Amino acid sequence: MNRKVNIKRYKRQDQVSYTLGATLTIELLKKRSDIIQKIYIHSKMDSEKILEKVEEICNREKIAIEYNDKAFRILSDKENCFVIGEFRKFDCELDNSKKHIVLVSPSNSGNLGTIMRTAVGFGVKELAIIRPAVDIYDPKTIRASMGAIFNLNFRYFNSFEEYRDYAREREYFPFMLKGSLPLPKIRFPEPCSLIFGNEATGLSDEFLKIGQSVIIDHSLEIDSLNLPIAVSIALYEATKHLK
Amino acid sequence: MNRKVNIKRYKRQDQVSYTLGATLTIELLKKRSDIIQKIYIHSKMDSEKILEKVEEICNREKIAIEYNDKAFRILSDKENCFVIGEFRKFDCELDNSKKHIVLVSPSNSGNLGTIMRTAVGFGVKELAIIRPAVDIYDPKTIRASMGAIFNLNFRYFNSFEEYRDYAREREYFPFMLKGSLPLPKIRFPEPCSLIFGNEATGLSDEFLKIGQSVIIDHSLEIDSLNLPIAVSIALYEATKHLK
Repeated sequence: MNRKVNIKRYKRQDQVSYTLGATLTIELLKKRSDIIQKIYIHSKMDSEKILEKVEEICNREKIAIEYNDKAFRILSDKENCFVIGEFRKFDCELDNSKKHIVLVSPSNSGNLGTIMRTAVGFGVKELAIIRPAVDIYDPKTIRASMGAIFNLNFRYFNSFEEYRDYAREREYFPFMLKGSLPLPKIRFPEPCSLIFGNEATGLSDEFLKIGQSVIIDHSLEIDSLNLPIAVSIALYEATKHLK
Repeated sequence: MNRKVNIKRYKRQDQVSYTLGATLTIELLKKRSDIIQKIYIHSKMDSEKILEKVEEICNREKIAIEYNDKAFRILSDKENCFVIGEFRKFDCELDNSKKHIVLVSPSNSGNLGTIMRTAVGFGVKELAIIRPAVDIYDPKTIRASMGAIFNLNFRYFNSFEEYRDYAREREYFPFMLKGSLPLPKIRFPEPCSLIFGNEATGLSDEFLKIGQSVIIDHSLEIDSLNLPIAVSIALYEATKHLK
């Protein structure tokens, strides 16, 4: 049978996305086998251990494996990527009884991935993203998350107001250079929302009227902390009393 | 006069390095005009404000300006880079009365730049780097530092022992997944050294015997925090009592 394989480079509007690489794909297989469409394996894949692991899960979960080198030329820009997972994009609801991270218009895929990794590390696993924003399903974002994307709940909103209607009663903490209380002075109740602005512009002054604004003090020798750094310090501070 | 201009793409063994971009070059002009060899300006540079600023400092400090589009094709891989600073690499001594950050074999230029930016932000401006390690003068590192490299002291060492001989009496805090005390429990005296391992491998077990090992607790759902995140959280915690 001569079936035409129609694989195209990832685009934002696609219904599926990809994990590029063995470690990431195994994370997908372990955590979300329910959304996988197919696993691609390259002829240069020579680790018996990885092959065994992938085949074991695929057999058990009845997931198709395709040996197809062409898929790698199209989907990956790295030389050393020999396993790819194709998965359906999925929807999440956020748990409103818990802390949320709210990113207003994040623009960098690497940053978003790093933030997810740290968020899972500190056990804050509810992520709201306010549009316009980078695509969380971009394979670059997924790679930077090191698989954390399969370990948390995330949801896009068209505006902060839409998010607020969804999130209901809770305390809001916008992080701003003009914030009125320094981070170490704040106790974060459950539930609450930690809100961060765009990499270049931060949060607009309107957020000064929303909840308790927070500043992470730093010297005037730098313009600002970078976004994943600011989010990570906030998460560390907001969760360390729980340990 | 027909002088042959001999510009080559940056290499680690070069005596000079480059600030790629206007903002970064103005930071260099403001902070370290003493090490500048030359400023390159592209014919597409059309911001009067930036040109005025650059020319004002160059006139005052007697720094040569060269209008040379070819230099940009060789030195920069970004389309929107219209000002470049060429500067002599410089040596620093560390201030042994102050806190040091010690990076053992960092391998990623973006990470090293981000760490410098955060370090300056938290006022910890002494950085020791143990070889083998990424090149701090790589224009990619300088760009990621957003100019912070001109605002702190750094020094390379061939081994941790060489660093220890240099740094003298002080307390050592190696950050490790096997660390024995969690970060929030630690008070960092002056002077002390905060020590971090390589991105992929961390610090070897030998560091468990050096000073007081520290762990930044995180869930087992991630392998580790990424290096700039770990360093930033440590710096935040080590300096917040001073504010």
